[in-house]
Amino acid sequence: MTTVTVPDDSLFGVHNLPYGVYSVAGSPPRVATRLGDTVIDLAVLLADDVFAAPSLNGFMAQGYDRWVAVRREIAERVTGDLPDEALHDLADVTLHLPVEVADYVDFYASEHHAANLGRLFRPDNPDPLMPNWKHLPVGYHGRAASIVVSGTDIVRPCGQRKGKDDPAPVFGPSVRLDIEAELGFVVGTGSAMGETVPVEEAERHIFGVVLFNDWSARDIQAWEYVPLGPNLGKSFASTISPWVVPLLALEPAKVPTPVQDPEPLPYLAMERPWGLDVDLSVQWNGHEVSRPPYREMYWSPAQMLAHLTVNGAPSRTGDVFASGTISGPDKDTRGAFIELTWGGADPVSVGGEQRTFLEDGDEVTLSASAPGPGGTRLGFGEARGRILPARKIS
Amino acid sequence: MTTVTVPDDSLFGVHNLPYGVYSVAGSPPRVATRLGDTVIDLAVLLADDVFAAPSLNGFMAQGYDRWVAVRREIAERVTGDLPDEALHDLADVTLHLPVEVADYVDFYASEHHAANLGRLFRPDNPDPLMPNWKHLPVGYHGRAASIVVSGTDIVRPCGQRKGKDDPAPVFGPSVRLDIEAELGFVVGTGSAMGETVPVEEAERHIFGVVLFNDWSARDIQAWEYVPLGPNLGKSFASTISPWVVPLLALEPAKVPTPVQDPEPLPYLAMERPWGLDVDLSVQWNGHEVSRPPYREMYWSPAQMLAHLTVNGAPSRTGDVFASGTISGPDKDTRGAFIELTWGGADPVSVGGEQRTFLEDGDEVTLSASAPGPGGTRLGFGEARGRILPARKIS
Repeated sequence: MTTVTVPDDSLFGVHNLPYGVYSVAGSPPRVATRLGDTVIDLAVLLADDVFAAPSLNGFMAQGYDRWVAVRREIAERVTGDLPDEALHDLADVTLHLPVEVADYVDFYASEHHAANLGRLFRPDNPDPLMPNWKHLPVGYHGRAASIVVSGTDIVRPCGQRKGKDDPAPVFGPSVRLDIEAELGFVVGTGSAMGETVPVEEAERHIFGVVLFNDWSARDIQAWEYVPLGPNLGKSFASTISPWVVPLLALEPAKVPTPVQDPEPLPYLAMERPWGLDVDLSVQWNGHEVSRPPYREMYWSPAQMLAHLTVNGAPSRTGDVFASGTISGPDKDTRGAFIELTWGGADPVSVGGEQRTFLEDGDEVTLSASAPGPGGTRLGFGEARGRILPARKIS
Repeated sequence: MTTVTVPDDSLFGVHNLPYGVYSVAGSPPRVATRLGDTVIDLAVLLADDVFAAPSLNGFMAQGYDRWVAVRREIAERVTGDLPDEALHDLADVTLHLPVEVADYVDFYASEHHAANLGRLFRPDNPDPLMPNWKHLPVGYHGRAASIVVSGTDIVRPCGQRKGKDDPAPVFGPSVRLDIEAELGFVVGTGSAMGETVPVEEAERHIFGVVLFNDWSARDIQAWEYVPLGPNLGKSFASTISPWVVPLLALEPAKVPTPVQDPEPLPYLAMERPWGLDVDLSVQWNGHEVSRPPYREMYWSPAQMLAHLTVNGAPSRTGDVFASGTISGPDKDTRGAFIELTWGGADPVSVGGEQRTFLEDGDEVTLSASAPGPGGTRLGFGEARGRILPARKIS
């Protein structure tokens, strides 16, 4: 037996206890938690085969009360002696996609981001926000198969693009490859077709939170997106962090959303709509270029889930909905390079080099932390990806 | 042993042999084919457990060569004596969703439909088609969980809508509930992230074809869809037919697409782009109101799949992509009521009643047939759904 001790300032102390899926050479992936830099196999620790599985889905499907009970049990157990066969050094394991993703929806919940994109994509519109934006959390479905775990290389996508003055579109590797720094919310238990998830019940359905990089090919997106929305400009890849931070761990991080004016329709109205005080960091080739503040997001996670289901659309264990780019009011808090460099017109310094969009070989890493109890901080790990050159398409 | 005989004019003769999933009381769902009005259990007939499964996915994943071999074997076997335990009367079985749907994408491949919708949704635009429309098959991701099998009741969705002169949006049951008569293409084998499915190889990936009704709440859609595309106006339900007609059965139904001008970019260019000569029928409360002709579709299924993957997006067994509304040039060939009634301005007679959009209790049934060899016709079964009143949402 071994006792795992973590420093008080660890981002993965006893107040975090995220869930992930790991493997060691020669063994199948299984569910674990993380304490400091130790990965703890939950099937061993708790002697429960629901964790001897390659995704969190089975456990998540057991529902909210079980999430509460298991979290309490883990918290009690990890402070005592732990069986050696449950423990692995973080450096010795491979981390996998933690969730078998069912449906994936990407929102657009930052007013700063939506307004910036409006100014960039639709410069002739007097109001950068669309008329619907403050009435509903605008979102669209994305490609579930394209969600990959941190560390997966990203092949530069090819596609059609057309400059304003080009007579016809051209095909080739994207020349405006971008990121979107977001949070992703993992749905633990769903709702049947015809049913809804009311805002006040959303917390019982949202299992946890991951970092989410919605890689975006702006040139492909700009040409394709009218009238049915983004498709190939986004569908090539999205990167998530391997550790799902339980929403239960984020109670101390809850903050009111910005004031919502006009008042949302009743199905979206909450007495106290809560956001999360998560500080993100965007590193470009190891240099921090932005610190997007999740607390600035206009629409709350509960409102997003309530909206998604208000038409009776079914939701399922493993659904992921992402927040959309997190951008604050200041330039150095913008969560996408198209905003940070104002469409490429205003390059940013990346370790002394002037950059606009991503070049082959570039690596982007999202990380984040949020307040825990008693002055502690909780970490989200990282969502990291490196750009590989486009493949030749005949 | 029993011999199943079918009349020469059966839509489910030996040249069709679609795949579906059935169950009888007390037994789990399994894969079957259909001959006339007889359902034939394939796990029994072929003594292969890949068919003792609640979806076609396992079989589809075995790949094109196996699809060819199994189809040949079934065709040989069903003309001889058949084991009684493999046979069920169609009337005695329950048919299930045949596919475990992975990602779902809806296209917009009918020029007539896209132009009609452009005129209705964007009347001020001089060109009803968007500039991108003839350069790429426009599409968007939809909600995989919402795809249900024929016969499933459809609850009228609630959502936000805003009339042109309303000061603010209102919430309530959709008052412009519509259909979209489409074909859905089931992907049998996918492609890895970073890879593509070239147009000429698409036939080896597309397993089969179903009828697809993309129920659409036009009022919800109109208010939400700018700039990220349709979401809740569509995500509440889509109905597919229970029988997947193999693409292998549709060789005699292949026809050239309409002339594609301008010439598509090389990744979409085909020497002979093929569509399918499928005649659909839309019945509204038992009265045929439209006969959409699939042969009119501008973009071909192979082009849609090639486009979907040209950016390296992964595709998977069980992906479904739908064609978008099938509308021909004439009014009585339009596949959506918003077109058929010109936005509700020009009601259609449904058994003597004047109708625009769907009322509670209405039932819509899509059916279709296509040419088989030697003057035969192949049927697609039906995609049927009845509208239930909206649920009260507090």
